[in-house]
Amino acid sequence: MSRSSETLFDQVCRHARQTSLLRSIEDVLGWDEQTKMPAAGAEHRAEQMALLAGMIHQRRIDPDYGARLAELAEGPLAADLYSDAGATIRRLKRDFDKKAKLPVRLVEELARTTILAQSAWLKARAEDDYASFAPLLEKVFDLKREEADALGGGACRYDALLDDYEPEMRTEDMAAVLSALRAELVPLVEAIVASGRRPDRSILTRGFPIDRQKALGRELAEMIGYDLARGRLDTTGHPFCTTLGPNDCRIAIRYHERDLGSAVFGVLHEAGHGIYEQGLRTDQYGLPLGEAASLGLHESQSRLWENLVGRSRAFWQFAYPKVQSHFPDALADVSLDDFHFAVNDVRPSLVRVEADEVTYNLHILVRFELEQALLDGHLTVADAPAAWNQKYRDYLGIVPPSDAGGILQDIHWSAGLVGYFPTYALGNLYAAQIFAQAEKELGPLAAAMAAGRLRPLRDWLTANVYRQGRRCSAGKLVERLTGRPVSHDALIQDLRTKYEPLYRL
Amino acid sequence: MSRSSETLFDQVCRHARQTSLLRSIEDVLGWDEQTKMPAAGAEHRAEQMALLAGMIHQRRIDPDYGARLAELAEGPLAADLYSDAGATIRRLKRDFDKKAKLPVRLVEELARTTILAQSAWLKARAEDDYASFAPLLEKVFDLKREEADALGGGACRYDALLDDYEPEMRTEDMAAVLSALRAELVPLVEAIVASGRRPDRSILTRGFPIDRQKALGRELAEMIGYDLARGRLDTTGHPFCTTLGPNDCRIAIRYHERDLGSAVFGVLHEAGHGIYEQGLRTDQYGLPLGEAASLGLHESQSRLWENLVGRSRAFWQFAYPKVQSHFPDALADVSLDDFHFAVNDVRPSLVRVEADEVTYNLHILVRFELEQALLDGHLTVADAPAAWNQKYRDYLGIVPPSDAGGILQDIHWSAGLVGYFPTYALGNLYAAQIFAQAEKELGPLAAAMAAGRLRPLRDWLTANVYRQGRRCSAGKLVERLTGRPVSHDALIQDLRTKYEPLYRL
Repeated sequence: MSRSSETLFDQVCRHARQTSLLRSIEDVLGWDEQTKMPAAGAEHRAEQMALLAGMIHQRRIDPDYGARLAELAEGPLAADLYSDAGATIRRLKRDFDKKAKLPVRLVEELARTTILAQSAWLKARAEDDYASFAPLLEKVFDLKREEADALGGGACRYDALLDDYEPEMRTEDMAAVLSALRAELVPLVEAIVASGRRPDRSILTRGFPIDRQKALGRELAEMIGYDLARGRLDTTGHPFCTTLGPNDCRIAIRYHERDLGSAVFGVLHEAGHGIYEQGLRTDQYGLPLGEAASLGLHESQSRLWENLVGRSRAFWQFAYPKVQSHFPDALADVSLDDFHFAVNDVRPSLVRVEADEVTYNLHILVRFELEQALLDGHLTVADAPAAWNQKYRDYLGIVPPSDAGGILQDIHWSAGLVGYFPTYALGNLYAAQIFAQAEKELGPLAAAMAAGRLRPLRDWLTANVYRQGRRCSAGKLVERLTGRPVSHDALIQDLRTKYEPLYRL
Repeated sequence: MSRSSETLFDQVCRHARQTSLLRSIEDVLGWDEQTKMPAAGAEHRAEQMALLAGMIHQRRIDPDYGARLAELAEGPLAADLYSDAGATIRRLKRDFDKKAKLPVRLVEELARTTILAQSAWLKARAEDDYASFAPLLEKVFDLKREEADALGGGACRYDALLDDYEPEMRTEDMAAVLSALRAELVPLVEAIVASGRRPDRSILTRGFPIDRQKALGRELAEMIGYDLARGRLDTTGHPFCTTLGPNDCRIAIRYHERDLGSAVFGVLHEAGHGIYEQGLRTDQYGLPLGEAASLGLHESQSRLWENLVGRSRAFWQFAYPKVQSHFPDALADVSLDDFHFAVNDVRPSLVRVEADEVTYNLHILVRFELEQALLDGHLTVADAPAAWNQKYRDYLGIVPPSDAGGILQDIHWSAGLVGYFPTYALGNLYAAQIFAQAEKELGPLAAAMAAGRLRPLRDWLTANVYRQGRRCSAGKLVERLTGRPVSHDALIQDLRTKYEPLYRL
């Protein structure tokens, strides 16, 4: 078909796909930066990234594209609530309207500032020197405030930012569900601590040769359905999953000789993200129906495979003998039950990324509450460390001995990711609710997992979650799929079912 | 400085640098494609590459940029023959005038066709089926003919294409110097074959564990001065060197357990390219004075380190004990002289990339003559295999038993690289001439090499070659540096000096 005979819809899709194509180049650069680039290449890489960011934003807010989209949005295609085309137009229009509110200057300033802030953060964390990071953190929050005001809409500033990661989620609803969750979690954690029971965690810190861990990692990734022929598994300092193209979704994890859990749950988590990406519709690549619905929904898939599958006794009935065969010296004398208890050790700790399934969401609450206060100006950057420590005392009963292990532990704020943290908790909530629904439709999954049959679950998720893309918001998708809005109920029930027997509560 | 107060020169440089910045992104994608990308990612990668190629061409021929450049080229800055600014303007103007002659359609068509032709070539080579590749090869030559005609200038079509790789080199001069070289090489090869002497090449095909080869590779690269902190050494099917940024120049080689020479001379060759790149002026990155002068000059540096240093007895006096220490089992009983003879084995062969230093240039002559005939239409694509085989008979005395090991062996034509081959031979000529000049100025280098002191040579090359960038053409640079235009004399003298004693001629 020649371009002149293209329909308006085709033209709009072509523009959007080309923008996605350009955006996917950022992911190649990002993957290389995190896994292969010599440190000396960082400065030039930042310039490449800034150039791309500017070009992508220009394409996103291109006025001709916007005009075509506006015309389409008024037409009959957009009015069809059930067609692919209707959903595509509505989502693209929403994206355009949002991005068009952001001045190029602000986008560039944010890119520049967050690059500087990230390197200041790295240094401040290494030297435990919050004061040296504070001015840049202040600048980031100033810019994010400006961004939120430019975007407008919603009942509060935080709404505008949260929407970037979790479209259509409102701060008020998020706060309500997390408060309800906290009310259940705090006493559950207290009961676990008070039980006096503790697994023998040293099982997981015996020596595990890295090359065997790598072989096991590949085996586990493929066992749950991640396709290595359309991806890679690499080594990195900070585990991640990134999609470089419709058939090139890569994961990377870290290995420690004396910590088997890091690689095992790292690979299950990242492969979970990868399974979502690999399950998206490739015919819709670069368009809303070929994209993940939200970060929260994405996290729900990593958490589902990591926790609901990967920390279940049923899964290890099948998988633990394979782990033992990789590490006969270290694990020959360790029973399935001891292994299962060890990987479900619950104890209040200071570092989010190492937190167990139960306490994890309390770490998120601290961040969610603090970033709202910082954005609104109710809390100053100078007072933030004290507020951080107080919340750890309140929710987890422990206080960081230093800022390095406290408020400086996460990269997010330095990278301008304000409104991102709650999606981690949402992921846990969505995961529990979706898994419960899968069991309702497929029947109890324990027997299948114990036999290594994960395909039925994956197929169900593919049809009901992955192939829906961004047809509607993640919140709506979960509500439609499970018959109720997101809540803390399913997660709390899962946690009680697992931990009450383990800790004899 | 605000943009409004920028001088015209600054504006032009900013545009050129940004174009180079965008171009450097292609190199990240290319490196990833050749070393890390899962095969399933190829199609999307081709789309990313095509998008970038179009955007880069648009920037290169941007009319505002062209107008500014034209104004500058008439001004006093450009008239200064000795200043950095003058050289920069003259080079940028030359680049613009050339690129502006190419219609976007042709650039896109070439990108598309060569991607298809490369995959057809891969298949044809694997299946030894030239006929299946012929239609695409014909299309490539049609487009290259169109490109040459659009570019115009020069005395023949080939001039326009050669200029892309070796600016200002004329086909007539290239042919004259290569004919003179052939006249010397053919009898030299005959004499070597007739000598009846042959080194024990089996020395290099004993078992050499890959991980030890990798360690040796890093050691050799660093020994000659390649900076691994500003680069990487990886594994690949087809060795290469690529620059992703001013402090990120990566090399990749291949390893075979039963062929030590492949890794050793691969790493010396690619690290030679890398040393040139790492020696360029970083303050001029993205501008002509921070870029290599030509492919021929680039190849001269890989060949200088691979052959003039890396196949000399003096170098191995220093380096061979280190090789032995990596492979005590395989090499303990092999003397320095036997090793040195083995790595200087000369014999006519069918495959260019495996050819020795003496016969190599005859492989280039075959390709140089055939591609001119194909471009001019004096030879048809259908008749090319027979012509190829006849030339191998004439120059090397052997005939390929199949097209897979004959005309299908190189990727170049399928990739649209017509006019590229002679730069390999030029590299050998430049290398010999430059090395001779270095010895004239620094004194004989054998003693320094035998002591592992390569720094004086590298510093001399850095000052006299690398830091000159594209100030003038490679041909002029070599002529100014050595006092005479490029010729076959220095190379022939080097070859006689080395091979007459080895083969007792």
